[in-house]
Amino acid sequence: MYRLTPEGLQHMALGATLLGAGGGGDPYISLLMVQEAMAKYGEVNIVSASELDPDDLVLTVAVIGAPTVMTEKVPSGTEFVDAVKSLAKYLGKKPAAVMAIEVGGLNTLFPLAVAAEMGIPVVDGDSMRRAFPGIEMTVFTLAGISASPMSLADEKGNVVVFETTTNQIAEKLARACVMQLGMADGLSSYSMSAKQVAEHGINGSMTYCAELGRYLQQIQNGKAGAYAEFLEFAKAKIFFSGKIIDLDRRTTGGFARGTLLIEDFKDPDRRMRLDFQNEFLIAYDGDEAVVTTPDLICVLDHENAQPITVEGLNFGQRVNVVGLPCAPEWHQPGMLELVGPRAFGYDTDYRSIEGRDA
Amino acid sequence: MYRLTPEGLQHMALGATLLGAGGGGDPYISLLMVQEAMAKYGEVNIVSASELDPDDLVLTVAVIGAPTVMTEKVPSGTEFVDAVKSLAKYLGKKPAAVMAIEVGGLNTLFPLAVAAEMGIPVVDGDSMRRAFPGIEMTVFTLAGISASPMSLADEKGNVVVFETTTNQIAEKLARACVMQLGMADGLSSYSMSAKQVAEHGINGSMTYCAELGRYLQQIQNGKAGAYAEFLEFAKAKIFFSGKIIDLDRRTTGGFARGTLLIEDFKDPDRRMRLDFQNEFLIAYDGDEAVVTTPDLICVLDHENAQPITVEGLNFGQRVNVVGLPCAPEWHQPGMLELVGPRAFGYDTDYRSIEGRDA
Repeated sequence: MYRLTPEGLQHMALGATLLGAGGGGDPYISLLMVQEAMAKYGEVNIVSASELDPDDLVLTVAVIGAPTVMTEKVPSGTEFVDAVKSLAKYLGKKPAAVMAIEVGGLNTLFPLAVAAEMGIPVVDGDSMRRAFPGIEMTVFTLAGISASPMSLADEKGNVVVFETTTNQIAEKLARACVMQLGMADGLSSYSMSAKQVAEHGINGSMTYCAELGRYLQQIQNGKAGAYAEFLEFAKAKIFFSGKIIDLDRRTTGGFARGTLLIEDFKDPDRRMRLDFQNEFLIAYDGDEAVVTTPDLICVLDHENAQPITVEGLNFGQRVNVVGLPCAPEWHQPGMLELVGPRAFGYDTDYRSIEGRDA
Repeated sequence: MYRLTPEGLQHMALGATLLGAGGGGDPYISLLMVQEAMAKYGEVNIVSASELDPDDLVLTVAVIGAPTVMTEKVPSGTEFVDAVKSLAKYLGKKPAAVMAIEVGGLNTLFPLAVAAEMGIPVVDGDSMRRAFPGIEMTVFTLAGISASPMSLADEKGNVVVFETTTNQIAEKLARACVMQLGMADGLSSYSMSAKQVAEHGINGSMTYCAELGRYLQQIQNGKAGAYAEFLEFAKAKIFFSGKIIDLDRRTTGGFARGTLLIEDFKDPDRRMRLDFQNEFLIAYDGDEAVVTTPDLICVLDHENAQPITVEGLNFGQRVNVVGLPCAPEWHQPGMLELVGPRAFGYDTDYRSIEGRDA
């Protein structure tokens, strides 16, 4: 267990932008909320699931909605605590800690604000260690853990509790309700014992995220050799460097979908295409898929290594495309069916980036 | 309190078709379910709310979905008991009786099947005494009673519990979930004490419905003077007699919307137009709105007085258009805003049919 420092929080926000893999919403919206909550309620402890009592109740908390809406409608904050309290009431048990469902994008930080207000710690872990667009796209689903009972709350006091037969139905129902409730609501799901989290979660991901942010900060601070240090820590590789020459981005059903085309700095005939659905999911170097979901595709500003979200993309931007291996916990039966390229409708095989040169 | 006889049940189904006012789904789907439940679990008692202990819990139960879907997907039955039990569990209290939310269409009868299985009576009352397309379109809403907490269940075991700030939001959320859950689910809502039901419900409506059915049955049996007896009992009037010459019916968002044109038997220049949204909502004799929601517009077969639902309409049918006054409980502040013509988007004033000649 350790106390999250203001600096650590800043690093976590930066790391979360990277792990958003282009999606997941801008963590700086949630950063402001966490800073406010910490000023009002006090700082927050980060705790390993294994440090809790094995029977302790852990609840995840997240925002659900369209990232493009969230940049316009900043969450009020009450909906996150309401979602957690509603689920706790439904379960008849108080949570000992809250947890992120996805460490990646703005959902990385919301649990910190809830934890500050409720006076409980945040578990150092999650179920994606990146952003994904669906509640069911978690290592918990692979472990057979139900997302429900699950509660959804808006800022006006509306609450919906779900008991579903599959996590896929949970996702569909929650999404359908969000469409009626202002497009950005609090969601509490995957109620688990600390023992289950320790066994089936991606443990250490909050700390990993902050560490990634610290390395990125060093690059931005101009520290010599910082880029190489970052790549080494993340086991990441630069797959492409060039400028954005085409961007086809449309929002359908609350999702930002489209493609991004980048032209190599040196060879104008060499191009990389990124396909995204909220997150970047496939990177093609010419015709070859070189990075594929669930591995992470991140677009970084070429000069200062600032991760760029899909909403932040612009024609002419000079960028590096960096591939990061997904959390090792993803590599278990069912991964490809749940979060592989074909799960997103791409006729492309998954190709791990580990052990390959860029 | 009285025991519902098999004959009384048949009459209730026939009356429910009439009170469906063209919508509400075909009661014969639910009739089969009730007959099955009664054969398995025993007969059902109909009880006045005032006969119950004032503190007794009463829960409504209904199917929610598209009537046009329900004729193809017969409910399995488990979703209704599941909805009631889920809400009871959420409230932490067992219901002493169940009740129809709408006495009109197939929702009239489902509570009888649930009551048989749960071994509790059905309250002789409801909140519409006709069919309406929205959960919020009840005299309970006018009395300030919340539809939530409210639970939705499908036949596969999925359950959603809602706590909403308004009954309008409750309707929107439930409808959004139904679109994801097979288009026909069990809904339990408006949890109330028996005292509240006695004070704010439309009491006696189940018995009224069966009586209407009994009068219609007498017409169909060829009893002399039966039509006049029916009209007198129902305070109803025949507003038009003619044959269907045009029908524009389309299903959008689970609702059957459209218009029906009827030509007078004697005067081919005289026409009546009925506008419907699941239910018939406005009857125009030429340019004049002669019957308007919430009063009931019912289309009856000209020969045998069988009420015809919107799905059963056909070109060339010979029909009577009968207007029935809505339940007197509707006449209170807020009625027009909730269920008047303008609430359905028609630029027409409400015009009570009571005290008027057809």
